[in-house]
Amino acid sequence: MGSATEGKPIICKAAVAYEPSKPLVLEDVEVAPPQAGEVRIKITHTALCHTDFYTLSGKDPEGLFPCILGHEAAGIVESIGPGVTEVKVGDHVIPCYQAECRECKFCKSGKTNLCGKVRPATGKGVMLNDGHSRFTVSGKPIFHFMGTSTFSQYTVVHDVSVAKINPSAPLDKVCLLGCGIPTGLGAVLNTAKVEPNSNVAVFGLGTVGLAVCEGAKKAGAKRVIGIDTDPSKFELAKKFGATEFVNPKDFNKPIQEVLVKMTDGGVDYSFECIGKVQIMRAALEACHKGWGTSVIVGVAASGEEISTRPFQLVTGRVWKGTAFGGYKSRTDVPKLVDEYLKQEIKVDEYITHKFPLEKINEAFKLLEAGKCLRAVISMES
Amino acid sequence: MGSATEGKPIICKAAVAYEPSKPLVLEDVEVAPPQAGEVRIKITHTALCHTDFYTLSGKDPEGLFPCILGHEAAGIVESIGPGVTEVKVGDHVIPCYQAECRECKFCKSGKTNLCGKVRPATGKGVMLNDGHSRFTVSGKPIFHFMGTSTFSQYTVVHDVSVAKINPSAPLDKVCLLGCGIPTGLGAVLNTAKVEPNSNVAVFGLGTVGLAVCEGAKKAGAKRVIGIDTDPSKFELAKKFGATEFVNPKDFNKPIQEVLVKMTDGGVDYSFECIGKVQIMRAALEACHKGWGTSVIVGVAASGEEISTRPFQLVTGRVWKGTAFGGYKSRTDVPKLVDEYLKQEIKVDEYITHKFPLEKINEAFKLLEAGKCLRAVISMES
Ligand SMILES: NC(=O)c1ccc[n+]([C@@H]2O[C@H](COP(=O)([O-])OP(=O)(O)OC[C@H]3O[C@@H](n4cnc5c(N)ncnc54)[C@H](O)[C@@H]3O)[C@@H](O)[C@H]2O)c1
Ligand SMILES: NC(=O)c1ccc[n+]([C@@H]2O[C@H](COP(=O)([O-])OP(=O)(O)OC[C@H]3O[C@@H](n4cnc5c(N)ncnc54)[C@H](O)[C@@H]3O)[C@@H](O)[C@H]2O)c1
Ligand SMILES: [Zn+2]
Ligand SMILES: [Zn+2]
Ligand SMILES: [Zn+2]
Ligand SMILES: [Zn+2]
Repeated sequence: MGSATEGKPIICKAAVAYEPSKPLVLEDVEVAPPQAGEVRIKITHTALCHTDFYTLSGKDPEGLFPCILGHEAAGIVESIGPGVTEVKVGDHVIPCYQAECRECKFCKSGKTNLCGKVRPATGKGVMLNDGHSRFTVSGKPIFHFMGTSTFSQYTVVHDVSVAKINPSAPLDKVCLLGCGIPTGLGAVLNTAKVEPNSNVAVFGLGTVGLAVCEGAKKAGAKRVIGIDTDPSKFELAKKFGATEFVNPKDFNKPIQEVLVKMTDGGVDYSFECIGKVQIMRAALEACHKGWGTSVIVGVAASGEEISTRPFQLVTGRVWKGTAFGGYKSRTDVPKLVDEYLKQEIKVDEYITHKFPLEKINEAFKLLEAGKCLRAVISMES
Repeated sequence: MGSATEGKPIICKAAVAYEPSKPLVLEDVEVAPPQAGEVRIKITHTALCHTDFYTLSGKDPEGLFPCILGHEAAGIVESIGPGVTEVKVGDHVIPCYQAECRECKFCKSGKTNLCGKVRPATGKGVMLNDGHSRFTVSGKPIFHFMGTSTFSQYTVVHDVSVAKINPSAPLDKVCLLGCGIPTGLGAVLNTAKVEPNSNVAVFGLGTVGLAVCEGAKKAGAKRVIGIDTDPSKFELAKKFGATEFVNPKDFNKPIQEVLVKMTDGGVDYSFECIGKVQIMRAALEACHKGWGTSVIVGVAASGEEISTRPFQLVTGRVWKGTAFGGYKSRTDVPKLVDEYLKQEIKVDEYITHKFPLEKINEAFKLLEAGKCLRAVISMES
């Protein structure tokens, strides 16, 4: 089964980031056909995540311009390049910024979800097969972003970055399973492996932090303490599993001291879901001596460093981090979609706004102002 | 069975630290009888460890003077106080600075070897029962140290800090199982849980680092890379299991880069056995992306901090620490003694010097100069 556009370039709408800190520009982009090991996807819905915003801000030293941002999306396979065996035209898919080749040292280690195969290309904003981009505007190349570039009606990704999902799943919802929700759930379930009856602290109650709350509830945590400087998040967080709340602004001592006191020695697990190095330290130091484990989920600004006294670790605390919640993308994302369909995990509840592609800059403004969880962009115009 | 001295004070020789950075003074010390839950031990042999030296240097803000240092020793129970059930007069024992009460939150957690029971007292240099010291010189109290104070012919310790060992074990050897050797072995076997075929980096090849090498060999590590700025340690380290060596002084780039290159991406496990915060960072950053785990074993100077980019953790490295190698003292030290008797672990090989108590200051000088592994002090004069 082929599509009418198979083997030909497609001209479609995409939001192009030409320069740091400037609004995205809606353009007619030419999307080349997929080459060997590549898949061209018609993106139906994409959400916005902080990483898109961070790169657009120009603070990411690896950010390349002009580029097409976007990495939390869902769509339908339009065509496949030579050698692609695991998806076919018409499959419903989620493009994944964490690839899973199942062949590299990382994939075979059984110890990590990071995959090394396409990193050398995606890190440079190009495709592995020929080292070039599949996007052009008036003949000039536009860089890919995170191997996904979902702010385009059509995108080309490596086959190892495509998770094939249940076709009955609503794409306008499960697009969220491309980044934020799995990151939070997996931080709890895969990286920390929280046990029943644990005390958990969640720093930051955005999408990622709420998914951590949900994961902690699933894991059977006893207390899930949500920490946010914006108390408007607290009521909502209850629905996701948080049992109590702390606003650091209500105290004139370090938040780690407040938490250690509240929990008679510290929490069993803490999660930093903000991206600030001082909070990463506080999250570690809020952990119980002997076993407390802190997981860094937030992404700090480039060049910033975490620090603490080594005694914190010598006396038994553990400092970890997580990328995409430790989920193996092609293997686990389809399972998460099924869990959503069985109502075992929330997705709809994270969607606070919807926009057409034309209004993507408005969505960015809401994100910047901290006024939304997830805004979903509908790509059909 | 009682001893002639039971219930009475004992006057004996001890090396007293009166002031930071001054030689120890050999004194006639009066050692009070053990109170409820206490054990008086005739120390036959004690070794010196860096922590003794660190506290003597005055750099330890929790160091109290005058005190009796020493925490790596063995001896025989002279008498017991009321309520002591697990040891009796004549038992051969190793006093342990990590207590194990089997009743506190820590002991019952199943997650740590740290015990909270006597910490409030030992941290203040006194005994828990009455908040006073059992040592006096001319009626003036001398503080305890780490709950052990083994630089005395007799000492009083809490019963939860006494490991009863096989009486056929030579006390002049197994005294070393009170600190350095278990710390290194346990860092590998309990804290890191190194798997067969791992690549391991060991920073610092003193007693602790050599015990890490030995633990790594026992765990079936493939490569055990010893790193030391003193190349005279390399030949010896081979006997303990190190397979190759790096002297940071031979390179004009950061040692973590050297190791990442040597191991095609970094080591699976690294251990810092020196006590320098810059090396702790290097040890973490020498770890493989995705899974590399770094264990801090060395004790840094007070107030110093470790730091790194959080990206190191977000991309899968884990930062941990260990105290007494994660061994539960009363449960595990007797087992280590048995392993030594079955020649499953080395002990004799760590002893490079022997002195009578009178020459303890000479042993300190050797330790300071980095010229010895372990010097064992014989307490009978
Ligand atoms: N590791 C990964 O794989 C991964 C994946 C996705 C996102 N992230 C990162 O996770 C972080 C959270 O993402 P999000 O989408 O949930 O962000 P968000 O902005 O929606 O949520 C952050 C929350 O933190 C709160 N906050 C800000 N400063 C605070 C402070 N000093 N103390 C307490 N609360 C504070 C805000 O009020 C907000 O509720 C970001 O850094 C993002 O880049 C990481
Ligand atoms: N965590 C615990 O429970 C615990 C228990 C015992 C000892 N310790 C600590 O472990 C550490 C090691 O103890 P030890 O008795 O083996 O000490 P040691 O002094 O015998 O050994 C340290 C080694 O490090 C080497 N070294 C020094 N600076 C170096 C550098 N910049 N790069 C490479 N090598 C360097 C020295 O040459 C020496 O061989 C100490 O900090 C001690 O306080 C911790
Ligand atoms: Zn994201
Ligand atoms: Zn791979
Ligand atoms: Zn010691
Ligand atoms: Zn205890």
